[in-house]
Amino acid sequence: MTTVAILGAGGYTAVELIKILLRHPHAKITALTSLDETRPVGAVHQSLVGRLDLAFEELAMQEVASRAECVFCCLPHTVSAQFVPELLRHGVKVIDLGADYRLDSVETFETWYETKHPDPERLGKTPYGLPELFRDKIPSAPLIANPGCYPTSAILPLAPLLRSNLIEPTDIIIDSKSGVSGAGRAPKLLTLYPECNESILAYSIGTHRHTPEIEQILSTSSKQPVKVIFTPHLAPMDRGILTVTYSKPTKSATAASQSELQGKLLAVLREFYQDEPFVHVVDHLPATKDVSGTNFVHLTVRITGGRVITVSAVDNLIKGASGAAVQNFNLIFGYPETMGLV
Amino acid sequence: MTTVAILGAGGYTAVELIKILLRHPHAKITALTSLDETRPVGAVHQSLVGRLDLAFEELAMQEVASRAECVFCCLPHTVSAQFVPELLRHGVKVIDLGADYRLDSVETFETWYETKHPDPERLGKTPYGLPELFRDKIPSAPLIANPGCYPTSAILPLAPLLRSNLIEPTDIIIDSKSGVSGAGRAPKLLTLYPECNESILAYSIGTHRHTPEIEQILSTSSKQPVKVIFTPHLAPMDRGILTVTYSKPTKSATAASQSELQGKLLAVLREFYQDEPFVHVVDHLPATKDVSGTNFVHLTVRITGGRVITVSAVDNLIKGASGAAVQNFNLIFGYPETMGLV
Amino acid sequence: MTTVAILGAGGYTAVELIKILLRHPHAKITALTSLDETRPVGAVHQSLVGRLDLAFEELAMQEVASRAECVFCCLPHTVSAQFVPELLRHGVKVIDLGADYRLDSVETFETWYETKHPDPERLGKTPYGLPELFRDKIPSAPLIANPGCYPTSAILPLAPLLRSNLIEPTDIIIDSKSGVSGAGRAPKLLTLYPECNESILAYSIGTHRHTPEIEQILSTSSKQPVKVIFTPHLAPMDRGILTVTYSKPTKSATAASQSELQGKLLAVLREFYQDEPFVHVVDHLPATKDVSGTNFVHLTVRITGGRVITVSAVDNLIKGASGAAVQNFNLIFGYPETMGLV
Amino acid sequence: MTTVAILGAGGYTAVELIKILLRHPHAKITALTSLDETRPVGAVHQSLVGRLDLAFEELAMQEVASRAECVFCCLPHTVSAQFVPELLRHGVKVIDLGADYRLDSVETFETWYETKHPDPERLGKTPYGLPELFRDKIPSAPLIANPGCYPTSAILPLAPLLRSNLIEPTDIIIDSKSGVSGAGRAPKLLTLYPECNESILAYSIGTHRHTPEIEQILSTSSKQPVKVIFTPHLAPMDRGILTVTYSKPTKSATAASQSELQGKLLAVLREFYQDEPFVHVVDHLPATKDVSGTNFVHLTVRITGGRVITVSAVDNLIKGASGAAVQNFNLIFGYPETMGLV
Repeated sequence: MTTVAILGAGGYTAVELIKILLRHPHAKITALTSLDETRPVGAVHQSLVGRLDLAFEELAMQEVASRAECVFCCLPHTVSAQFVPELLRHGVKVIDLGADYRLDSVETFETWYETKHPDPERLGKTPYGLPELFRDKIPSAPLIANPGCYPTSAILPLAPLLRSNLIEPTDIIIDSKSGVSGAGRAPKLLTLYPECNESILAYSIGTHRHTPEIEQILSTSSKQPVKVIFTPHLAPMDRGILTVTYSKPTKSATAASQSELQGKLLAVLREFYQDEPFVHVVDHLPATKDVSGTNFVHLTVRITGGRVITVSAVDNLIKGASGAAVQNFNLIFGYPETMGLV
Repeated sequence: MTTVAILGAGGYTAVELIKILLRHPHAKITALTSLDETRPVGAVHQSLVGRLDLAFEELAMQEVASRAECVFCCLPHTVSAQFVPELLRHGVKVIDLGADYRLDSVETFETWYETKHPDPERLGKTPYGLPELFRDKIPSAPLIANPGCYPTSAILPLAPLLRSNLIEPTDIIIDSKSGVSGAGRAPKLLTLYPECNESILAYSIGTHRHTPEIEQILSTSSKQPVKVIFTPHLAPMDRGILTVTYSKPTKSATAASQSELQGKLLAVLREFYQDEPFVHVVDHLPATKDVSGTNFVHLTVRITGGRVITVSAVDNLIKGASGAAVQNFNLIFGYPETMGLV
Repeated sequence: MTTVAILGAGGYTAVELIKILLRHPHAKITALTSLDETRPVGAVHQSLVGRLDLAFEELAMQEVASRAECVFCCLPHTVSAQFVPELLRHGVKVIDLGADYRLDSVETFETWYETKHPDPERLGKTPYGLPELFRDKIPSAPLIANPGCYPTSAILPLAPLLRSNLIEPTDIIIDSKSGVSGAGRAPKLLTLYPECNESILAYSIGTHRHTPEIEQILSTSSKQPVKVIFTPHLAPMDRGILTVTYSKPTKSATAASQSELQGKLLAVLREFYQDEPFVHVVDHLPATKDVSGTNFVHLTVRITGGRVITVSAVDNLIKGASGAAVQNFNLIFGYPETMGLV
Repeated sequence: MTTVAILGAGGYTAVELIKILLRHPHAKITALTSLDETRPVGAVHQSLVGRLDLAFEELAMQEVASRAECVFCCLPHTVSAQFVPELLRHGVKVIDLGADYRLDSVETFETWYETKHPDPERLGKTPYGLPELFRDKIPSAPLIANPGCYPTSAILPLAPLLRSNLIEPTDIIIDSKSGVSGAGRAPKLLTLYPECNESILAYSIGTHRHTPEIEQILSTSSKQPVKVIFTPHLAPMDRGILTVTYSKPTKSATAASQSELQGKLLAVLREFYQDEPFVHVVDHLPATKDVSGTNFVHLTVRITGGRVITVSAVDNLIKGASGAAVQNFNLIFGYPETMGLV
């Protein structure tokens, strides 16, 4: 049994994490904190009434470390990085679901997040917790940077094609549609029910903070500079991300016909993910509902008009956040990677 | 052409009102105010971009009165009543879409709204703007209390049955389901998209402020004390109210069978509303979508298990608020009652 | 490990059942049938791609019985009852998620379902699979009649109050709101997305087939004839049922005040369900989202206007169907009752 | 007053058309047909109860022509083209909301629609009813090909940029998200509520029949061959289309910076649409809700990563179908173009 604490447990990511951990036979939640909550967990998340006998607490990091072998941080950016150094000093493992440790470059972080980084030394040294690409780096790491939701949905279909030199690395368009839970639980006009129900909109075109994260991971993974244009959308649903990418085949991506090329790329994806428990390469065009509430990713590829089009579906709160975090937890603590997740 | 101003024009009720008035051939909007807005109307309500060349303004009531012959108040309760006396002194007509002038009794108001009433003298002297019951009182009134959304949906099916002494007046249950726009445009956790999407809940059982309004109007209209139990629900949709009422037939409601009694009650409703342009008594069970975006009411009645069950559907923002307000406007200024509304 | 087969596995109930059984450490799905499907399970239910390596098959009951120790029937009414006798002869346990064995009286069945019953002898001898009321009858039974979704939501709050003689048994109104998955997966106009999105409607007032089921179980459970008026609604959401009931306190339900009576009834409910793993008596008014995707029931009670009002929330596909079926499976095969369900 | 008939009046497009025509002061609906309906209009479309005293009829085209000066065809492809020649012979004006007369080339039609065209002579001679591009051709035409919904949303932002030679014509990606009403009112699994609620998916990538329509109109309008990649999506909402396009600036699109280029393109769009009553070029990123239920189009442009990105929002049933049809009707019969539409 591994004891775990969750910092910033008042939001949508945390409630999913708690539900997964309650099903996990070897995890025991021992502490929950939030910036402004001290009520019992069932008062903050009514879906947890009677399922977890804990209240939110104001705790010093020392106290957190004394109660938990693993800490999940679901905190706003720059807040995690204020607590992580002390947690690590106390010898606990930390899985940060926020953005603080995902980027390798302090400069890039400070440009995109428009603020100083509180713990710059750890940037570039923290594994990116996407086991499908970086599994070997995870078990031994004291700190894991859990991937962003959009990046997960975009990196998984693109990375194998880039690694195999099948698509051009600098002419990639990523058009993603996300459910509203991705915007968090703090009340604001944009995500009020009557504002976003029966409506879809694009936002943050060219300025979304997941852009450098996607570029960095695709570049690292394929050992070449990758540039993307990223357009996120808010779709009228609770959860799920559908990501469609448009890229150009390289000269190496030769085939007698579009359908042959499509078969070739599908085969590359299938081979790449053949042993992955959570990634399913499918023939049909996936819907977000197919993976809703699960840690699975469904993805496929099409060739049309001389373009490579990938389509992938993830649950933003599970594979895009808390499910991936538990995958990392399992890898770190030596549990089967799928434990609690199927 | 009649000039109109809207106070409190930043919410969902006001934007619907503006859209109706833009279609009205004899209304001209000349002023919009809000407690905290001075942006152009298209910035506050993006659906109005290019349709109305006005900005929100901070205006003294004297200025409002100089610009408008009719003022629609879409303000929180007790706020309307602070401005209405001055507006009336300036000779403008006022249609209050809030709750300040609906109740006849200051005591009842102060009990249910838990605050002092700023203009108690006008209570009991202000017509309730439901033309289907009180049409003759409206044209000459300087001030109209526009009905609440739930009350409209409950009063219309029940009033004719109570007036005809066909249902018991003190054993009435009203179970209503409303879209989320009824909860207003101020961001709060309860109405955040991921909180209320894919969910339905009952709220304010026994304590909703529309309860005394329903009781008063049904009592006045049927000349007997009427008591109701009222359970509102928040349903995952933008707009619409479906109200189901349960009551007992009186001894006068005799018939050889349930289906005969049902036919009798349907006939009473049909006769009562035969000349009404906006109330349709239907045979089928209506859905809120049937009246969505319109000023129409669909209602019907069933007899089962010895109970009278009415079902009615309205759009909470139109017939439940802004459409009714324009009906009253038309009556006051001598336009055809349906102008701008069909 | 217990082998299980699912008959009628093409619908929404079955896909939830499969997902629960995939998480169950001691269940192994060995056969899936449907009236018209022979595709792989992932083609029928895309959410199961890669999770279950089975195709739908046309199988004789003998073959089903040779592969499975337990058969779950998710078939239309009267279809289950054509297969069940043979399955039982082969010695398998059967959990019928349909309506064929819920009613004790053949006459009542044939009146409400307007058809002959293919296996009338088993009516009145088959336990109703609601463990919270009939747990002791379940383990030894060869056949279980799994409860309907609406009945589950209505019986659980009402049964303890009726048993304790706290509410009048013949003046009960049940107003339920269900998600659209309850209407099944066969395409029809009523449940087409643009018909029921952004809309709510009441249907089958006085004629819904769950009415006699609710009356029978409440009568059996409280040893007195119970009569209800039942109004179901279709709400614009995938899943969940919110049920509000209105009844009158009996003379035994004495208290100094409404709030004292409310406390008394809450205490009765709390005591009744204190050892139940899936029923949570709460103080607040529950939302269907609080129990969505789970086998939990949240319920509470209010007293207002001299009436007893209960509010309960269940997931129609889980506690209202497949979760309850697995609860019964666990009881029959000696597994912990919550296995696979938390 | 102009008399009008609607063929194929049982679907979502037709009900919107009827509602617009009911508000139109100079249109009178005199006949409704459908392939399989003879019920009163209020039985087929409950939202029209009491608003239009007509039943669906089986009518010969001669009878239709005797009752109506203008016929709107809301029929499936190839069905319109079976009736149109006779209607035209009788001298009525025809506005075809289907796809039969949109393409200029019989070959292209037969390739994409995989069937013979029943009336090939009129292809290439029928104006495309998008007044913003082809207003001068509409008033005198006996037959109008009303634009498709996706094409409207894509052509309006792209055409002015292509005409001004500001974007490359053969490297255009169109990523569109549509509400479910676009898929029609015939029940099918794909558009069943529980299938598409809480889900988004891409479909018909590279094969959607609106692709050649978009290419033809953009080519004709800009006098150069235009090629597009078109990815439609089904989003969980009733109505609305959001279209995002990605293209490359031409060498003529010079500017000192991305933001300067963006300003330049915005200015081109603003100038192009400055006198258009229904097209609003906005600075912000539009949402489909902003134009829901209206004939308005909101569109804008962004430059990022060296790409031109346009975003446009339309209501698929109004500006994408019935609103545009009434715009054409107004132009043909000499009414103000906005009549019935604001």
